[in-house]
Amino acid sequence: MTIAVIYGGTRPNGNSELLADHAVQGLPAEKIYLKDYIIKPIEDMRHSPEGFQDRNDDYNSIIDRILPHDILIFSTPIYWYSMSGTMKNFVDRWSQTLRDPNYPDFKNKLATKKAYVIAVGGDNPSIKGLPMIQQFKYIFDFMGIEFGGYVLGEGSKPEDVLQDKKALFAVAELQNKLKI
Amino acid sequence: MTIAVIYGGTRPNGNSELLADHAVQGLPAEKIYLKDYIIKPIEDMRHSPEGFQDRNDDYNSIIDRILPHDILIFSTPIYWYSMSGTMKNFVDRWSQTLRDPNYPDFKNKLATKKAYVIAVGGDNPSIKGLPMIQQFKYIFDFMGIEFGGYVLGEGSKPEDVLQDKKALFAVAELQNKLKI
Amino acid sequence: MTIAVIYGGTRPNGNSELLADHAVQGLPAEKIYLKDYIIKPIEDMRHSPEGFQDRNDDYNSIIDRILPHDILIFSTPIYWYSMSGTMKNFVDRWSQTLRDPNYPDFKNKLATKKAYVIAVGGDNPSIKGLPMIQQFKYIFDFMGIEFGGYVLGEGSKPEDVLQDKKALFAVAELQNKLKI
Amino acid sequence: MTIAVIYGGTRPNGNSELLADHAVQGLPAEKIYLKDYIIKPIEDMRHSPEGFQDRNDDYNSIIDRILPHDILIFSTPIYWYSMSGTMKNFVDRWSQTLRDPNYPDFKNKLATKKAYVIAVGGDNPSIKGLPMIQQFKYIFDFMGIEFGGYVLGEGSKPEDVLQDKKALFAVAELQNKLKI
Repeated sequence: MTIAVIYGGTRPNGNSELLADHAVQGLPAEKIYLKDYIIKPIEDMRHSPEGFQDRNDDYNSIIDRILPHDILIFSTPIYWYSMSGTMKNFVDRWSQTLRDPNYPDFKNKLATKKAYVIAVGGDNPSIKGLPMIQQFKYIFDFMGIEFGGYVLGEGSKPEDVLQDKKALFAVAELQNKLKI
Repeated sequence: MTIAVIYGGTRPNGNSELLADHAVQGLPAEKIYLKDYIIKPIEDMRHSPEGFQDRNDDYNSIIDRILPHDILIFSTPIYWYSMSGTMKNFVDRWSQTLRDPNYPDFKNKLATKKAYVIAVGGDNPSIKGLPMIQQFKYIFDFMGIEFGGYVLGEGSKPEDVLQDKKALFAVAELQNKLKI
Repeated sequence: MTIAVIYGGTRPNGNSELLADHAVQGLPAEKIYLKDYIIKPIEDMRHSPEGFQDRNDDYNSIIDRILPHDILIFSTPIYWYSMSGTMKNFVDRWSQTLRDPNYPDFKNKLATKKAYVIAVGGDNPSIKGLPMIQQFKYIFDFMGIEFGGYVLGEGSKPEDVLQDKKALFAVAELQNKLKI
Repeated sequence: MTIAVIYGGTRPNGNSELLADHAVQGLPAEKIYLKDYIIKPIEDMRHSPEGFQDRNDDYNSIIDRILPHDILIFSTPIYWYSMSGTMKNFVDRWSQTLRDPNYPDFKNKLATKKAYVIAVGGDNPSIKGLPMIQQFKYIFDFMGIEFGGYVLGEGSKPEDVLQDKKALFAVAELQNKLKI
């Protein structure tokens, strides 16, 4: 069982990154920092005769890196009560991959995976982060991905989340599951 | 009372664009198509000594265009159960403007405005679009913007939404309000 | 195609009742006013050797009246952001019926039905009524009931909802569907 | 600082009861088991000339018992994705107390309190229990009660929740807070 962690944060060592790193500490994990790549927003070409066009960015290379893994961990700061725009652009592009002849098995492959969400926010995340969790549920349901669970941490300033004992306990629990 | 419409769609004449255009038909409205501009994702520099840096893109020019208006209409396709990544990147950047000395009154100015959301989705938007509506509520609450209401239309293929009578009625009602 | 309307309101001619009555105006509908019956709260006996006991109230007679119909309309005022306690007690008892040897086909029969929710609230129902809609979705999903749609009206004082044009339009639309 | 625990469960030693009891273990707490009392559903008389009438049940005696305390813990099984009907009827009646001349300070008194929710469900409570949490948030906001936090445990059969390590950790954390 192998793991890919997809980080949506936009500063190094952000709280959501720290929390996800606790979850995979000591485990082999492919770590993908979306901020280090160019991922253009989707252009909806579903209904154009020419169809989707190659966007000439780093998006496909990231898909190539996550597909081999069994477990996907989405680690994102909560920006404005949702995943970061950086991560949203990444997910939006799945609509293109679903129609990409170079990825004929995209949905089937994702449907074999289990996903977790680890998110940290500063404005009452245990309440105001819930719509985002519901959206991840819908996203995973659409793709047939099993939603293994989520951890919502609280934090704003660097390393704040290391004071959130419930969140730390929850990622420790998650790590126990991932070890098996 | 003047209106700015912020379009988050990524194809011309998309369903959410059509629906919003019904709402402002015959009314003077500043129309801003985010897809035509470069809006870089935020880089979270809140905790860096140097603070946020100019991103050298079109974001500020859009802020300059919306600030003079009383009414903001957020028109977005529902991509993966939320606003488009294009629109999310735009909203994420507000965190930068909130700290931008060139926009000392950003929050106060937004707090005088009233906002509406017009969104169209293909996968049961009247249920699966609800977390997004809740997120807009939190966003508007944070900024002190009054949430005037929302319209969730259904559609996937071009012009589908023109068959959604309830959505058309709702935007006609909205237009009546905007006329006053 | 026949209709049962289940009213959860606790005063005669309440707003949610009026709105539901618009939907079924002129159509044959079995109208069930829960407030006129004694429906005891469930007592969870799932794990007791003796199992659930007859509660000697009117609950079963109501189940008998709704089972023959194809369409169920749940009409409820929004009390404290959810269905009325009167209606909740009715739904809670389904857990008993699911295990009642006198209703061996309870779930299968409900799974053939289509349900609508018509609810009216006074405190921003188009936002604060959304968790309740999600709960009805989960309830219907569990039972295999198709969720046909919902109407959220606004109103507090008697007949307030008759001023809610969007809600009236929505129930008129619903009536057109029910006529077929 | 004193505590009242309001139990909405309908069987003795149910999972939500066990979990709440862990939270208040060793602390003085007024324990109120709603199932042991008669709490009639509200009858909405807000708009009747005669106003609300005494319902001649145990409801007021429960209000009298919770009002002296600083902390309220709502402990409920998740029935059909929401609080039990037993608890809902209790909350619904607040609308009556808000207008009861015998309780002129009801809202002001509740507004000084802090509340927690401890709920246990069997069908994916960490996702499907979220609308209920949002509803408690709205309820507490309306009354001016501070929402201290919530714990969602998983369990169906007796004592199941004692296997839910995350929930046990969370109530242990809660107990530490309550001790201060």
